[in-house]
Amino acid sequence: MALIVHKYGGTSMGSTERIRNVAKRVAKWARAGHQMVVVPSAMSGETNRLLGLAKELAPGKTADDYNRELDMLAATGEQASSALLAIALQAEGMQAVSYAGWQVQVKTDSAFTKARIESIDDARVRADLEAGKVVVITGFQGVDEAGNITTLGRGGSDTSAVAIAAAMKAHECLIYTDVDGVYTTDPRVEPDARRLTTVSFEEMLEMASLGSKVLQIRSVEFAGKYRVPLRVLSSFTPWDIDLKEEAKSGTLITFEEDENMEQAVVSGIAFNRDEAKISVLGVPDKPGIAYHILGAVADANVEVDVIIQNLSKDGRTDFSFTVHRNDYAKTIDLLKEKVLPTLGAADIVGDTKICKVSIVGIGMRSHVGVASKMFRVLSEEGINIQMISTSEIKTSVVIDEKYMELAVRALHKAFDLDQPAA
Amino acid sequence: MALIVHKYGGTSMGSTERIRNVAKRVAKWARAGHQMVVVPSAMSGETNRLLGLAKELAPGKTADDYNRELDMLAATGEQASSALLAIALQAEGMQAVSYAGWQVQVKTDSAFTKARIESIDDARVRADLEAGKVVVITGFQGVDEAGNITTLGRGGSDTSAVAIAAAMKAHECLIYTDVDGVYTTDPRVEPDARRLTTVSFEEMLEMASLGSKVLQIRSVEFAGKYRVPLRVLSSFTPWDIDLKEEAKSGTLITFEEDENMEQAVVSGIAFNRDEAKISVLGVPDKPGIAYHILGAVADANVEVDVIIQNLSKDGRTDFSFTVHRNDYAKTIDLLKEKVLPTLGAADIVGDTKICKVSIVGIGMRSHVGVASKMFRVLSEEGINIQMISTSEIKTSVVIDEKYMELAVRALHKAFDLDQPAA
Repeated sequence: MALIVHKYGGTSMGSTERIRNVAKRVAKWARAGHQMVVVPSAMSGETNRLLGLAKELAPGKTADDYNRELDMLAATGEQASSALLAIALQAEGMQAVSYAGWQVQVKTDSAFTKARIESIDDARVRADLEAGKVVVITGFQGVDEAGNITTLGRGGSDTSAVAIAAAMKAHECLIYTDVDGVYTTDPRVEPDARRLTTVSFEEMLEMASLGSKVLQIRSVEFAGKYRVPLRVLSSFTPWDIDLKEEAKSGTLITFEEDENMEQAVVSGIAFNRDEAKISVLGVPDKPGIAYHILGAVADANVEVDVIIQNLSKDGRTDFSFTVHRNDYAKTIDLLKEKVLPTLGAADIVGDTKICKVSIVGIGMRSHVGVASKMFRVLSEEGINIQMISTSEIKTSVVIDEKYMELAVRALHKAFDLDQPAA
Repeated sequence: MALIVHKYGGTSMGSTERIRNVAKRVAKWARAGHQMVVVPSAMSGETNRLLGLAKELAPGKTADDYNRELDMLAATGEQASSALLAIALQAEGMQAVSYAGWQVQVKTDSAFTKARIESIDDARVRADLEAGKVVVITGFQGVDEAGNITTLGRGGSDTSAVAIAAAMKAHECLIYTDVDGVYTTDPRVEPDARRLTTVSFEEMLEMASLGSKVLQIRSVEFAGKYRVPLRVLSSFTPWDIDLKEEAKSGTLITFEEDENMEQAVVSGIAFNRDEAKISVLGVPDKPGIAYHILGAVADANVEVDVIIQNLSKDGRTDFSFTVHRNDYAKTIDLLKEKVLPTLGAADIVGDTKICKVSIVGIGMRSHVGVASKMFRVLSEEGINIQMISTSEIKTSVVIDEKYMELAVRALHKAFDLDQPAA
């Protein structure tokens, strides 16, 4: 008997039949004596449908021009699915109530379409739980200081669920999704990929930031910050499977390193095709240029990932970085307009046909030569490395997009990820 | 240059193309120097789609069981259309902002699915208007004291618009809809029906309460209470027609009776098929029985319309009334359970195959024999009258549903409504 948070993704909420299954599953947990808080995403396709309507109405505009209204619009998807889930729970004989983010309240900053949660007031939810109700809270959205509706960006429902679990000091936060856990890499790319029964928080954080779509990175950050036990599991198991079995399924994100356990050197291969490379060529090599370039980019609210500054030659250097592909055109324009004239750089060039492939493993801390093994494997496959970025537990390379699957499969095999864990 | 409220129905908001036309029309008014507040309904079909999903999830339940959640659900339709309209206005080059009912705030009581507006705080809206913004406010919904989302019932967006116009002391509230004004009767039933250029508030109130679908009755009540000049006009005229012409089109609901104008004795024929008749038979004829029966019905939040008590015979009487068809089964059950045993009545019978036909006219005040002419016309057509209800400016009869069209056409002709006004 504990306070449990369930989160269900859009696919799990994709039809009334599936919503009914979610309700039956939640009711099973509640009847076993648990206090249940449920965070659903919008029904699959709904957010795209709504944003598609907006795009039809404002084809020439960039999103920034009407972000506040996009959040008003997109937030309706989760409100509808939350109300539907509450109704389904009531039809199952449970007491249930649904709340939008502003009702709880889930307070965020005012960065429309990518807001960050600042605080959650749990009083109302706690009172309902004490009264025996299942509480359904909209994922993905909150309210800013001025009372505007905000959304947290794609996958934001994960973050909502973890933040609510943190605020409520939940025993565990279960993320029900359309995959049955965290894999060594995407099984659609490497059929021999294996499910991990546990993964360390740090590895999960790297995997999420590197493009694994299983969990939104901010949800993992939140889980880490507040040490929320987090489990990723499948919503497509029959709702009536044994609760004890269900509670052990999927992948648990752990915070304690088990010292007795032999850590795999590399736990997983992550990759993403969402980024684009931008290079500012012939930049005068003097103090402050990184700030000059990236400051302007940051001011436009564009996130930069890999950053590389080449060796200087004749007092000039090339400066490269990657941004999300959605921000590519905007960033190029911005640099040409604001940075090129004042910086005295020669030119700005870009490439959207790149991908980033990363190896992640907490074991890399204590093993040397992991990165060089990665470079050797890629070299043997004839894959040219364009950029490299490393951290304590991961090494990432930017390569030509067309080599992505080849790189992932070769690395998966080279690091024995297709073999059962020791 | 004045403060103007526009309200657009679901059909007018039915596609992105139509929303764009609404935006262009509103922009035309704003560019002419008016301060604009716009209240849109949900896109046509959206509310039904959402409530259909709810029905799939809870087939065995009556609406009352999950009314709070139905309001959470249904309110998303207007929030989405409001955000889309704000985006369309921005795409037209206007500054625009959309608000949900709880943001304004539109405060209501807690009668979920049929809440009543209690107050509107206009400070936020006024500040935006002063700043040159077009303000879009969701129709149909508000927020109760406890912070729950409420909805006002079908057609509630009309009421929202009028209530907002009243709170803002708007110069005029224009209800754009899929008909081009108020007609002597429904043109689908009587092709010779004529559009009225003006109609008195009292007549409009009767017509609305009698089943005319042009305006929701509560919106007319609000308009009357706060003397909001109200105009019903078509949203399907080209958006770029001359503003002065548009401002005079449709039907104006007037508050001053023009003494110089010859009033038609009867202004219109209203009808509805939404009611059902319930009779409690063999009731002991003693003081308090009306209260005993209708008190229980009112406690269940069921509205009663026509009420008739027959002449007593042998100390017993029959008591009949009509309710909305949606409330029919519930009311019958309630009476059998709670009233029949304690009242000592013989039986309860009902009939859902009835309709109500009414003649409405402010001229009835000063003309005798209008009701008896109505009864004669129906009698000549062989139509049996089941119930009669009168007020100062209307006479209603309940008849067999199958005679409805016949009755409407015969009355329309008999009262010369097919002739141009004098």
